[in-house]
Amino acid sequence: MKAELIAVGTEILLGDIVNTDAQVISQGLSELGIDVYYQTVVGDNPTRLERVIREARERADIIITTGGLGPTLDDLTKETLARVFGKKLTLHEESLAHIRNFFASIGREMTPNNEKQALLPEGCLPLHNDWGTAPGCAFEADGTHVIMLPGPPRECEPMFRERAMPYLYKLAGGCIVSHNIRVFGLGESAMEDILHDKMAAMKNPTIAPYAKTSECFARVTAKAESAEAAEEMLKPVVDEVVALLGESVYGVDVDSLEQVVGDGLRARGLTLSVAESCTGGLLSKRITDLPGASDYYKGGVCSYANEVKINVLGVSADTLAAYGAVSPETAEEMAEGVARLMGTDFGVGITGVAGPGGGTDEKPVGLVYISVWFRGARQTRRMRGSLGRDRVRNQAASTALDLIRRMLP
Amino acid sequence: MKAELIAVGTEILLGDIVNTDAQVISQGLSELGIDVYYQTVVGDNPTRLERVIREARERADIIITTGGLGPTLDDLTKETLARVFGKKLTLHEESLAHIRNFFASIGREMTPNNEKQALLPEGCLPLHNDWGTAPGCAFEADGTHVIMLPGPPRECEPMFRERAMPYLYKLAGGCIVSHNIRVFGLGESAMEDILHDKMAAMKNPTIAPYAKTSECFARVTAKAESAEAAEEMLKPVVDEVVALLGESVYGVDVDSLEQVVGDGLRARGLTLSVAESCTGGLLSKRITDLPGASDYYKGGVCSYANEVKINVLGVSADTLAAYGAVSPETAEEMAEGVARLMGTDFGVGITGVAGPGGGTDEKPVGLVYISVWFRGARQTRRMRGSLGRDRVRNQAASTALDLIRRMLP
Repeated sequence: MKAELIAVGTEILLGDIVNTDAQVISQGLSELGIDVYYQTVVGDNPTRLERVIREARERADIIITTGGLGPTLDDLTKETLARVFGKKLTLHEESLAHIRNFFASIGREMTPNNEKQALLPEGCLPLHNDWGTAPGCAFEADGTHVIMLPGPPRECEPMFRERAMPYLYKLAGGCIVSHNIRVFGLGESAMEDILHDKMAAMKNPTIAPYAKTSECFARVTAKAESAEAAEEMLKPVVDEVVALLGESVYGVDVDSLEQVVGDGLRARGLTLSVAESCTGGLLSKRITDLPGASDYYKGGVCSYANEVKINVLGVSADTLAAYGAVSPETAEEMAEGVARLMGTDFGVGITGVAGPGGGTDEKPVGLVYISVWFRGARQTRRMRGSLGRDRVRNQAASTALDLIRRMLP
Repeated sequence: MKAELIAVGTEILLGDIVNTDAQVISQGLSELGIDVYYQTVVGDNPTRLERVIREARERADIIITTGGLGPTLDDLTKETLARVFGKKLTLHEESLAHIRNFFASIGREMTPNNEKQALLPEGCLPLHNDWGTAPGCAFEADGTHVIMLPGPPRECEPMFRERAMPYLYKLAGGCIVSHNIRVFGLGESAMEDILHDKMAAMKNPTIAPYAKTSECFARVTAKAESAEAAEEMLKPVVDEVVALLGESVYGVDVDSLEQVVGDGLRARGLTLSVAESCTGGLLSKRITDLPGASDYYKGGVCSYANEVKINVLGVSADTLAAYGAVSPETAEEMAEGVARLMGTDFGVGITGVAGPGGGTDEKPVGLVYISVWFRGARQTRRMRGSLGRDRVRNQAASTALDLIRRMLP
């Protein structure tokens, strides 16, 4: 089954809002094993909307529209779909009563233009809207299934999940399952080089590489009659990809490096603190993005000035004088210093030149030292490469998390 | 002029990511006075991509694509556009050198598949990518202007603003100039209420309200024959909007609260340090997002655990026992404590319940105290309202910056 999404709304074409409905619906269709080949956004213009609907009817089994169901003159989705598919609009009494009740409940008079929202294509299945006034609906005509949903995300998302998905589930008869293999320390193109032959040879399951901020992942996807059958097809492929990518894999179907590190620390009853110079609090922020981080995270010091490195973290002035603030020695003393200051099992020290200024020939922009101290043992990494300030900082924070992951006992 | 956007990427059709590029580009085109009638998303499939391109060519003067310029096998945007418009792809040496330098700078070998990124349609205008490896490009064929941009938002947005907009600017004829009036402490609808009559009465310049994370701004835009003429039309309108919005305005055409605070501190030779609990390093991270923050920022302490508040910041154990960690008293001692620890003019203390867990009847999720200490004077604000963890944290950090701005001597 192939579906196509049509969002109707000039506000999307003007860039006033992002089309998040498309993401929610695409995710759900993917779960159902229904392919989406096209998403289109068109304005509140009946001629252009009709053109898009006719195009979609040619190439899809299912058309899902969002938006244009409201009471105003420029809400034309129903009218246009009804015309293209040769349906009359008729008054749906139950929906009208729902709209009347809604206005009564907020103590307002229903203006006459709201009646328009209760007009639905003859013979359709009304989709009751518990989250707003405009009902949705579904109908079938000449082998095409049409589903109309309201546009506002707070209505569209529950309408899709609770009204449209059960309807589609019956149509789809089949299942698609994916697993994401998360990788740090390999670029997307290096990962693709490793997986290339395997990717090219496979049709089902498929393997696809994706890039994310300073990391990447491989998604393995299978289509089958049931979720169980899909999982059975996926298992050997996931295992093989994990083996091919080796130690760079930090998890399958996990959210992030910070999640893997947090879960690992919590499970072992270990604690963490961090000392940051060039990352300026970013690592601390990422660790505390997760609710419940207080189970293992005690705190951090951002030691932007050298005097803070000395006075708060206890980095020796001699070390700073001899090797400079951006040096493996300083990173190591920062890591150990913060672990002692906060009494934690793990301590992290990060110092470097995030740029764009501040680089020298000897210590160029992008040079960062990351050290992790764990109960007397330590590992230190050097990072190079001018990727721009944000990416240098993100990669340095990720590198610290990756080091902790590898050092977990 | 009519433009049409085509986003190429199966990850959008699967619902893995939202097509935010479309919003950024649509906003920019709207500023330039270029209409967008359709946005389409299509997967990494050459047949379907070709179909969409042929359709767009029929109905638009300008086609802008995002995505599909990378090094992997399924990156096919350039190849497909070149075929449809009858152009050969040729190696662009300068882009290849840029890609080679990029890999050299991060100390990695360039894998051969990366060369593909330097292949560009013959006769095109290359758009240099300072934010990643894949260059964009622009060409004209049979009266249609085609612009290709990379897909990752951190590359697409600056590439569009700094490379594509100047190109389009020439095509559009005439001149469009905007000024952004940045506001903190007023919601978008409150701002709209204040500006409503003025907005409704104006055609050129226009005033448009926009919402951003925990703040909003009003954009005033004029179209004229020249930039000077546009500026002349804008001046009285900007002045009037600034006067109407009053103290909530923190700047015109400034980047962010952190920029305004940073510039204000630097100009006065003042220094800053921060102590964060629920924001977990986010404020420190935002301050150090700006290059050169070391001119005024000495550092910060993330005191996630109470013992860190006591031992590092010198918050009194009695205060914590009597009022709790989430209290104005604790916020104030944190602010003063970190200023004394780091020897700075300003000190910030933030403590609260970011959620989703950890709330009580007395101290619900979303309750945050923000205190700013400045050479013995202090101001403390209470923030309430459960907006979700990320927004609570962001708004708390912004509130701290807004307080500093207002306390600058």
